[in-house]
Amino acid sequence: MTLEDLNRTLLVAPFHRWLNLRMVKADTEHILIEMPWRDERVPKPTLPAMHGGILAPLIDLTGFYTVLASGNMCKSTADLRVDYHRAASRQTLLAEGRLVKAGRSLSVADVRIHDEAGTLVASGRGAYNM
Amino acid sequence: MTLEDLNRTLLVAPFHRWLNLRMVKADTEHILIEMPWRDERVPKPTLPAMHGGILAPLIDLTGFYTVLASGNMCKSTADLRVDYHRAASRQTLLAEGRLVKAGRSLSVADVRIHDEAGTLVASGRGAYNM
Amino acid sequence: MTLEDLNRTLLVAPFHRWLNLRMVKADTEHILIEMPWRDERVPKPTLPAMHGGILAPLIDLTGFYTVLASGNMCKSTADLRVDYHRAASRQTLLAEGRLVKAGRSLSVADVRIHDEAGTLVASGRGAYNM
Amino acid sequence: MTLEDLNRTLLVAPFHRWLNLRMVKADTEHILIEMPWRDERVPKPTLPAMHGGILAPLIDLTGFYTVLASGNMCKSTADLRVDYHRAASRQTLLAEGRLVKAGRSLSVADVRIHDEAGTLVASGRGAYNM
Repeated sequence: MTLEDLNRTLLVAPFHRWLNLRMVKADTEHILIEMPWRDERVPKPTLPAMHGGILAPLIDLTGFYTVLASGNMCKSTADLRVDYHRAASRQTLLAEGRLVKAGRSLSVADVRIHDEAGTLVASGRGAYNM
Repeated sequence: MTLEDLNRTLLVAPFHRWLNLRMVKADTEHILIEMPWRDERVPKPTLPAMHGGILAPLIDLTGFYTVLASGNMCKSTADLRVDYHRAASRQTLLAEGRLVKAGRSLSVADVRIHDEAGTLVASGRGAYNM
Repeated sequence: MTLEDLNRTLLVAPFHRWLNLRMVKADTEHILIEMPWRDERVPKPTLPAMHGGILAPLIDLTGFYTVLASGNMCKSTADLRVDYHRAASRQTLLAEGRLVKAGRSLSVADVRIHDEAGTLVASGRGAYNM
Repeated sequence: MTLEDLNRTLLVAPFHRWLNLRMVKADTEHILIEMPWRDERVPKPTLPAMHGGILAPLIDLTGFYTVLASGNMCKSTADLRVDYHRAASRQTLLAEGRLVKAGRSLSVADVRIHDEAGTLVASGRGAYNM
């Protein structure tokens, strides 16, 4: 699948369009997805930070597309782990996925989310049913 | 905090209003949050199932409010684990949180999400910074 | 499998004999495994506490035998999560496993470890390949 | 701490001596620990593979020493995640830890375990109380 194909597949989900995602890089080992800031993502109106709840699906789907981009067909997420390292403020976030293991029944990918300043905001991994 | 207070706090976040959440029960050991179906949550227009990405934040926030409802002040999520058991179709989901451990620096809560038929859709746990 | 059969299977592994395990209860939803104190399990000679490293395999194998006791054949552990809640001192520990989901390709079990005083020492869950 | 100091600290725990561990490399970002094969680590006498239960503490302690080697004092493991990728046979295993985040209350390290042939056997991460 080309980067264009992967983006087309990614944006089939209304939730991904709501997240305003764009895959900016993809090869067989590694992908990069960009998520711009949106004001309705604050945890409360007075706190200009990214709601952590949005980072978990970003890690999940980045891992999923990392497996797809590696040329392996995954069907669904089996399980997901997320560590929150820092609050993310009014910035575009970059989610980077790396393939850990392409397996017969389960594949695993690691994901790190950085802000524009390069600070690690969250990281985690997903295991995907093949 | 009363159930009404907890609901007011819960709905401060625009993301929680988008998810259309309502806490229907809360005591010191256990809470229940309802999330109705919304059509824009499908993974693709032809698949009438719940996008798994939405279940991770539901588990995260249910665990968070379980700790709050127990009378312990948590500040943020430290980490999260989610297991996906079955695809959820066009139904209201019920997320049930149970306090595992109220700690000085970290608290842990378990969460299970069932559909209206009582089928377990996803489960997981969060660890929360106090 | 009867409790006796399960104990026989459990004690095939030299590591489980080293841990000195004994399953004391087993039904289709829930099992109980006892692990007595042993002095060589301290993290350092001057600290009479249980080395946390030993609790992770105890959670793993208790979840595994929970799935077996439920009448489902699992082959290996896919992944494991452990939360450490308190240091465990010179006591027998009780690991209690509960079946969360018996699936076709993955099954999940929750485990809690208490000391003799009933204090929760560690908890976690495993996902097992069927 | 020098590599020699770290090895001395590592081998204070009788369990680590039983595992026959040796740290062979350590810098502020990354450490390497070697664990030779021992026959009593088989899951059953007829199966010449490494008992998976031993890999979880290896991941836990490698992450812990990764944080220590980075110059940050951690006190205990808060939580642990392990993914099992392949059965490991009668070989020396190499556990490689990499610092993900040194935080004020929690630090996170990733660990991968390879066999001598370079095959990834298990991977995971620990979060450590500072």
